[in-house]
Amino acid sequence: MAAQSRSLPAVVLSGGVGGARFAWGMARVLPAEALTIIVNVADDLELFGLYISPDVDTVCYTLADLEDPERGWGRADETWHAMETVARLGGPTWFRLGDRDLGLHLERTRRMAQGEPLSRITQDFCRRLGVAPKVLPVTDDPVRTIVDTVEHGPLPFQEYFVRYRTEPQVRGFRFVGIEQARPAAGVLEALQHAAIVLIAPSNPWVSVDPILAVPGVRAALQGKTVVAVSPIIGGRTVKGPAAKMFRELGLEPSALSVARHYADLLSGFVIDTEDASLAPRIQAEVGVPVLVTETLMQPKPRREQVARSVWEFAVALYEVVSPASSAHGPLGEG
Amino acid sequence: MAAQSRSLPAVVLSGGVGGARFAWGMARVLPAEALTIIVNVADDLELFGLYISPDVDTVCYTLADLEDPERGWGRADETWHAMETVARLGGPTWFRLGDRDLGLHLERTRRMAQGEPLSRITQDFCRRLGVAPKVLPVTDDPVRTIVDTVEHGPLPFQEYFVRYRTEPQVRGFRFVGIEQARPAAGVLEALQHAAIVLIAPSNPWVSVDPILAVPGVRAALQGKTVVAVSPIIGGRTVKGPAAKMFRELGLEPSALSVARHYADLLSGFVIDTEDASLAPRIQAEVGVPVLVTETLMQPKPRREQVARSVWEFAVALYEVVSPASSAHGPLGEG
Repeated sequence: MAAQSRSLPAVVLSGGVGGARFAWGMARVLPAEALTIIVNVADDLELFGLYISPDVDTVCYTLADLEDPERGWGRADETWHAMETVARLGGPTWFRLGDRDLGLHLERTRRMAQGEPLSRITQDFCRRLGVAPKVLPVTDDPVRTIVDTVEHGPLPFQEYFVRYRTEPQVRGFRFVGIEQARPAAGVLEALQHAAIVLIAPSNPWVSVDPILAVPGVRAALQGKTVVAVSPIIGGRTVKGPAAKMFRELGLEPSALSVARHYADLLSGFVIDTEDASLAPRIQAEVGVPVLVTETLMQPKPRREQVARSVWEFAVALYEVVSPASSAHGPLGEG
Repeated sequence: MAAQSRSLPAVVLSGGVGGARFAWGMARVLPAEALTIIVNVADDLELFGLYISPDVDTVCYTLADLEDPERGWGRADETWHAMETVARLGGPTWFRLGDRDLGLHLERTRRMAQGEPLSRITQDFCRRLGVAPKVLPVTDDPVRTIVDTVEHGPLPFQEYFVRYRTEPQVRGFRFVGIEQARPAAGVLEALQHAAIVLIAPSNPWVSVDPILAVPGVRAALQGKTVVAVSPIIGGRTVKGPAAKMFRELGLEPSALSVARHYADLLSGFVIDTEDASLAPRIQAEVGVPVLVTETLMQPKPRREQVARSVWEFAVALYEVVSPASSAHGPLGEG
């Protein structure tokens, strides 16, 4: 069974850091051809005429083992000479672009200007960086998160996130362009083919929701085994403003609130051992099995353990609904 | 007289390296407010969506003492991490952009996208980099040199210059857009105000001609004391393809050919001591006084000596036509 379950086709829905680390773990659990990571693009922005896709880049860098382990974004062994010049010339430096990182934005912008879609460029970059699983931006169309804030009104996501360091109080979110966005080539196919869809421990509001809101994506999850991992542990987030957002929207920042957020999608839910006491309530209220396990993904080797626990839980749930020989046969592992 | 002559207003017409070094020398001879450097932009290009102005940047970097002394372009203490990424991702690396240099292209592109003209951005950058004389791109309008070559047909200048390392055989040059180009704000004013115009030892074909060909520039030189410095010494150029171009166009690569090229503009001409024997012929044929002096501008301290010799020669010529109290009074030096 182990060999068979490992080769079930799976999709991970991911934002930035947390999702990227989880995807890194999953890439060690599943054979590359069985794994697709669908990534949020509503955080994307243009700066200096360059197209920047922070979540896609974090996922690619992390899977390629090029990511900076401390910062949670950008590349390791980075230098900042270009930004030093920008600063000296009086330009904007609130969004810090490292020199190595810049090269990717330059080349992507060049190819996009020639009409190539983000999704195809991303796959080519991943291949060149040695990333084996398929990484797909959820859409090639422009979708932009606007964070409605008390202090500054509507803010483009990166201004809220980087420029204002997530300090403004959040009222709500809009994903501009989402109604017109079409799933990128391969997104619906990957979801249709998937036996299991894993929602990574990413921000539900601004990382996962703008994936789910791309027309066709939510519908493609119907009938799938969908398991989400809570990004909130003990009322806090490892990285990012998810807990603060829940509070500001009048919700308790807890794994329970996350489970409620995804309730209509879930086949199962994963919470950290620190939140074990919440399990019965989640199970009762949301009506799905709950896995209580270690979910912290630092230091790096722990990611594989987290991914393996989540995967075994998801496969067990999958086998309940699709016993014995499922529609998705094993892909074979050589 | 020395004090008065030093404060006569002057314009230098400049391309890249040679012109930049000469301008550096002139900046030590004249007070900043008396000196304007008008720079070629027909070498400009867009790469990765960034606007790059190689001659303007070389002049600014050189005047700011930021230039790389070996390469003749770009900045000293440069790193190449962005281009390493571009290379790894399979992108074009024939035009090498250093990390520190990239910051300038990023910020300029950002400001140009907001509608600011190149000339205003250049002046602001110069101020921030501590460059005192006024540096003006000859035009804010797009002018692009096309090099007609035997082997590859028409090539955009930087492809000829960098990608093909000036190897193709030249048939001629065109400056696309030149008829529609308007002098940048301040260009005609500087020329009108100038007592003396110095044509730097830059490439006559692809650096100086596309300055002179901007409508209004050539006319503004009428009646001025115009002195050119030969970029060809002993049949060779210190940097760049000027000598090779003369040959391929069927002309002898010599200071004489350069003097002939500028004949209708010149009040005087400056050649290197190595070419002293050409002086009588130039004087006879082109009909202007010739200064024979050291013109090599390396090592760096020599630039000031070259500039001072050229300046004293030009002032003497100026005083012949505008004796005693000239229309241009001294600017005063404190």
